[in-house]
Amino acid sequence: MAEHTLVGQRVVRIDSRAKATGQARYTADLTLPRMLCGKVLRSPHAHARILNIDTSKAERLRGVRAIVTGKDAAGVKWGVFGYTRDQELLTRDKVRYIGEDVAAVAAEDEDTAVEALKLIEVEYEVLPAVFDPLEATQEGAPQIHDHAENNINIHVPIEIGDVDKAFRDAYYVREDRFVNTEYGYCQTEPYAVLASYDSDGNLEIWTPNASPHTKAKALSNLLQKPLSKVKVRKVYTGGAFGGRSDIFPGEFIAALLTMKARRPVKLVYTREESFTSVRQVHSMVVDLKTGVAEDGRLLANEIKVVMDGGAYSSTGPIATSVPFLVWEETYRLPNVRFNGYRVYTNKPVRGMYRCHGRAFLGGLGMQLDMIAEELGIDPVEMRLRNALTTGDTQATGSKIISCGLSEAMEQAAEESGWKHKRGKLPHGKGIGMGANGMMVGFPMGIRGGSSAMIKFNEDAGATLISGVVDNGQGNESMVVQVAADVLGLKMEDINLVCSDSEITPLDQGAYSQAAAFVSANAAMGAAIDSREQILEIASEMLDATVDELDLRDGYVFVKERPERNMWMGKAIRKALIEDTPIMGRGSYMPKVDQRREWVSNPRGQHAGTFSFGAVIAEVEVDTETGQVRVTNVTGAHDCGFAINPMAVEGQLEGSVASGGVGATLLEEHSWDGGQMLNANMLEYKVPLSVDMPQITPIIVETIDPEGPFGAKEAGLWGSMNMFQAIGNAIYDAVGVWIKEFPITPDKVLAALEEKDKDR
Amino acid sequence: MAEHTLVGQRVVRIDSRAKATGQARYTADLTLPRMLCGKVLRSPHAHARILNIDTSKAERLRGVRAIVTGKDAAGVKWGVFGYTRDQELLTRDKVRYIGEDVAAVAAEDEDTAVEALKLIEVEYEVLPAVFDPLEATQEGAPQIHDHAENNINIHVPIEIGDVDKAFRDAYYVREDRFVNTEYGYCQTEPYAVLASYDSDGNLEIWTPNASPHTKAKALSNLLQKPLSKVKVRKVYTGGAFGGRSDIFPGEFIAALLTMKARRPVKLVYTREESFTSVRQVHSMVVDLKTGVAEDGRLLANEIKVVMDGGAYSSTGPIATSVPFLVWEETYRLPNVRFNGYRVYTNKPVRGMYRCHGRAFLGGLGMQLDMIAEELGIDPVEMRLRNALTTGDTQATGSKIISCGLSEAMEQAAEESGWKHKRGKLPHGKGIGMGANGMMVGFPMGIRGGSSAMIKFNEDAGATLISGVVDNGQGNESMVVQVAADVLGLKMEDINLVCSDSEITPLDQGAYSQAAAFVSANAAMGAAIDSREQILEIASEMLDATVDELDLRDGYVFVKERPERNMWMGKAIRKALIEDTPIMGRGSYMPKVDQRREWVSNPRGQHAGTFSFGAVIAEVEVDTETGQVRVTNVTGAHDCGFAINPMAVEGQLEGSVASGGVGATLLEEHSWDGGQMLNANMLEYKVPLSVDMPQITPIIVETIDPEGPFGAKEAGLWGSMNMFQAIGNAIYDAVGVWIKEFPITPDKVLAALEEKDKDR
Repeated sequence: MAEHTLVGQRVVRIDSRAKATGQARYTADLTLPRMLCGKVLRSPHAHARILNIDTSKAERLRGVRAIVTGKDAAGVKWGVFGYTRDQELLTRDKVRYIGEDVAAVAAEDEDTAVEALKLIEVEYEVLPAVFDPLEATQEGAPQIHDHAENNINIHVPIEIGDVDKAFRDAYYVREDRFVNTEYGYCQTEPYAVLASYDSDGNLEIWTPNASPHTKAKALSNLLQKPLSKVKVRKVYTGGAFGGRSDIFPGEFIAALLTMKARRPVKLVYTREESFTSVRQVHSMVVDLKTGVAEDGRLLANEIKVVMDGGAYSSTGPIATSVPFLVWEETYRLPNVRFNGYRVYTNKPVRGMYRCHGRAFLGGLGMQLDMIAEELGIDPVEMRLRNALTTGDTQATGSKIISCGLSEAMEQAAEESGWKHKRGKLPHGKGIGMGANGMMVGFPMGIRGGSSAMIKFNEDAGATLISGVVDNGQGNESMVVQVAADVLGLKMEDINLVCSDSEITPLDQGAYSQAAAFVSANAAMGAAIDSREQILEIASEMLDATVDELDLRDGYVFVKERPERNMWMGKAIRKALIEDTPIMGRGSYMPKVDQRREWVSNPRGQHAGTFSFGAVIAEVEVDTETGQVRVTNVTGAHDCGFAINPMAVEGQLEGSVASGGVGATLLEEHSWDGGQMLNANMLEYKVPLSVDMPQITPIIVETIDPEGPFGAKEAGLWGSMNMFQAIGNAIYDAVGVWIKEFPITPDKVLAALEEKDKDR
Repeated sequence: MAEHTLVGQRVVRIDSRAKATGQARYTADLTLPRMLCGKVLRSPHAHARILNIDTSKAERLRGVRAIVTGKDAAGVKWGVFGYTRDQELLTRDKVRYIGEDVAAVAAEDEDTAVEALKLIEVEYEVLPAVFDPLEATQEGAPQIHDHAENNINIHVPIEIGDVDKAFRDAYYVREDRFVNTEYGYCQTEPYAVLASYDSDGNLEIWTPNASPHTKAKALSNLLQKPLSKVKVRKVYTGGAFGGRSDIFPGEFIAALLTMKARRPVKLVYTREESFTSVRQVHSMVVDLKTGVAEDGRLLANEIKVVMDGGAYSSTGPIATSVPFLVWEETYRLPNVRFNGYRVYTNKPVRGMYRCHGRAFLGGLGMQLDMIAEELGIDPVEMRLRNALTTGDTQATGSKIISCGLSEAMEQAAEESGWKHKRGKLPHGKGIGMGANGMMVGFPMGIRGGSSAMIKFNEDAGATLISGVVDNGQGNESMVVQVAADVLGLKMEDINLVCSDSEITPLDQGAYSQAAAFVSANAAMGAAIDSREQILEIASEMLDATVDELDLRDGYVFVKERPERNMWMGKAIRKALIEDTPIMGRGSYMPKVDQRREWVSNPRGQHAGTFSFGAVIAEVEVDTETGQVRVTNVTGAHDCGFAINPMAVEGQLEGSVASGGVGATLLEEHSWDGGQMLNANMLEYKVPLSVDMPQITPIIVETIDPEGPFGAKEAGLWGSMNMFQAIGNAIYDAVGVWIKEFPITPDKVLAALEEKDKDR
């Protein structure tokens, strides 16, 4: 493996043709014989007690095959940790948000299912509701869950060093509040589930998802069935962005319906349901107090975050500490106090997001610029003075084993012409930087690792069986590319069987930026194991030691005398005849501290490694209309090693759009109490191609000692940094700080007016 | 593994519920979106040159999506060995039998496809044809293939010892000719293929088959595509009996159609097509000359077999030596000369059959009785004196490592009351014995072995990935039972992923009686490998050595102190956390001589082991009508070890029906030249339940040193022996030998008349 033949190359992804031709099938495209149409009856109330559900009229409707309510469920509640199990996925006692799942129907066709919903009579006792997380924690606020006083779902307190003393010692201290509203994931694909149940008790599920194994485990718990009976199948997934991670009521309901009807049931959500009744991104109120030394070094940080979690826990508790973690993953924080609160409200449920920190990381990144200005330090220099580097230990104890943060900042500054632009552009034009570190391979217990197996065909083709999950990132291609490189095969020689909870060994899925670092590592291990078996056999046949041999283009050859070579199929056949068939296996588990309390009290190594990046955004602000236009983005990212540079760059482009321009400037849900007003793609604004800037990607390679070929991750390139980069660029352009996201024209105009007043 | 918890138990098969509820889907049941209907245009001539095929009118028919002829194929010919590659699966130059595939259509619906066939104009030059294998070898007979003079497809000459001298030394010599006509497989399921081709060049095939890997390899050769692009998928198979082993034109044609139409194509054969255009069972003319010592010991055998192979080789060349092999696998043959000829005729193609030797083994078994009578020896005693036993070496050199032949004969005789019945029943009633040995695990090169892998779920459930193929025998259940026993799990804890050429490692399929001996051996190996990994981890946790531990009911426990135990899931989780996930792998290759010439010149070890059995049939012959009714069958079979005794007994019952009563008394094709006259289930007579005798199964266990838990095979229990047992019983009943199969009433009446004349 001295020379790479495939990794590091710009290769076309294995799913490109299927997607370009429309041949790729997504869940809503699937059909099964005798399949029924499922529909869900949803709560019209934000908070109400359910007094009675009468399904008798609906049951008598011709064509209705099954109706389920909470009574049909085992009564198990869902939550990612024992102490967050607060949601019956089909509620029995109360509804807690508008759009919550109350009952469901499976019928011969959609019209019948919709008609049946209308015939279900639900008697509610409406209760007072609360929609603001700060109000929800006040005395006298309506209590949403019996177990949660003051509606606090989870409180994460972290304290490192002597924060109060550090503030006293600080040269300069400032406090700011940053706020962001909820927004959506807006995956192109609507949420859908196809479920089928057979007479042997096997449940099969197709749904867009980030991890078949995680979905299977949740369904196994909720349905009280062994994992071997719950089979989450592979299907193309049209985008995830963190929003396909959790178990949703839809999968549970489709399972209950198919088990009751004994026929396959497909549930396809409308766009409105996809907005309201799957998951949303948390809103946050962030209070930041920061103390620095005269030279800009961070001495003290006090941070309070209140997140609106909506009606249930979901995966939200994990999100409560993540914003802190990404901050400590970027800069040296000697003294820091964090209090994160996730609060219940009568709004839809909020979950994991590809980037949890719009207000948080964005706010801190903007506050750094504010401080830098006060101290007369260039924002890039301000960051470089605080940036973590290889060998450093983070505030809560994680070691940095490879780090290209400073390099990324310097290269992005250089490439963008930062020195000639910052503070020097005409009024209305500005430039700003954002920087971040990011965990790669989280402590997820047994679910944090990956395993893979490889079997060979007699003509030297192979099948890689891996749990890897691809939600559009190119992860499937990546594991094939890695395995093919190790084995000296072409990518088309290797078939991939993946993302099926029955067939593939456990894998965390497309979580915690782990596909390259963990899944590809396991695939590489299986390839190396196979390679060794092949070389062992070949060494007899070519009369050379294993070390003298290499594999390339389907051949084994003596490195020093390449004319001594042999088609690899010969070795594979010899192994078969000799009853030592080549079967590779590999696994990888990130080297993390597997503490159960890592969410509520992170201490120790909380990721296998860390990726780093910097983004510089250039904006034009129209002072008449308040419109902000991002014209250029220069992003530099330490991905460890770019297995497929084209895919790495593609990730930047994607994250500049949806996590970046969209989330910073456009996307937000608007509300009337608990009723979402813009749950559709006409009124909810995602960036269009005309909104996109010119993007210049810079790949920084640090060759991580643990990653496969040194690779880490490339998924969160732009989305972590666009908030701060744009916010800082706006200040550079027009001299105002907008501390509420999204930065819409009205906020810009208001700030400009305020500024004019101050003059 | 001291005590078996599962193997040896009468367990319900894992597919029982699916089959009983109708949930199991067979190829004809499958649908894919945008699927087309395929139909084949067949030759109306037994032998003709194709001068021209004009598809232009058919192409213009609305709804026709693709038409293929031989021109669309790569021109590669099919045959199991290089020297038997004689068949273009879609012919270009000539047709050689009525029903041969000439062209095919894929259309939107069946009516359109049928109409399109009528619009295809084929210009033939009709050639003289030959239908009798003996005539076909005569000077001046029409030559069917350019390469085959005298129409001899293959000649297998075998000579062991000094045959001529042995005949001179013999005390008694006799010669007989036995004849059988062609018959059919009559699988309940019609032959069908569903093929799908995607824009990445992946071809998927669903078809009833005995080995996805063998089908994939053949298609890979014929279509000139790598194996990784040909994916033969698992589907329920409704019976095989050897008739789903080969590649058939249907799969090739469906592949060509889907590749041309770029839409899925399903081809479902009519019952007539299933009879004429898939495969049939060889007809044979067998000349037997046998010399014995005064005590009945076989001294010399000269055997000539002429088999009618039909128009092409198919897998028939293998069949040419098999009848000899099964004879040498049963008795000691010190001096033997064999000449097997497989001859081309203008009849449909003949292939492998679960029991190749109706006339052959049946004839020899009857001739043994004739000789025994001449020498005044009881037929059972005659067989016992010649029976092979453990440690013996067969004529061509195979060692017998376990043998219950004598035991089987003795137990069957005892159980049936042979001593009180043979020669002592009233006229019209009779009893007869048949006995056989049978190869288990053939030399099939790299395709003769099997490999398997196991992955574990965190709750101690598992998935076994095995190439095992189940055509109705219960093979799938068997491998699960074996793996579950080794792992101390329940059968329902283990999912099986099998019979998919992409996912599963190479396996020979349901061939050569190898599923138990080879596939289950590999599965057992993978289970043992996993077990060792589990015990290794558990030994730390339970503070005991690996040897002190055992697995049962999902628990690991200290054998001597079972109260020291632990749920197996704990060990599996610990392994996951410690990055040593339990992944088992196993393989088995029968210990055979892998000579390329084993068909044309068998020498050395030609099977991994051998199974043995004896069947005693009791009959009633109606001397008025010639009707023979089999009333009782007592079968004793050395299956090595009965993994699931219920399944072993089920195999006897099945083979007494289709290979036994049906083939011996009822089944035959009738012909007008090359035109089959009874290609339907009304006129082709298979035994009904009213034709079935009372069956008494006796399992003989010899615990084979190589087999999994000592198991060998149980597939050919009755079908190998019913011919001779019934033939001999008829003689015992009414004193006539019928040497032509099937033994129909007209033949019985003619023989009785002849016998009366002789008096």
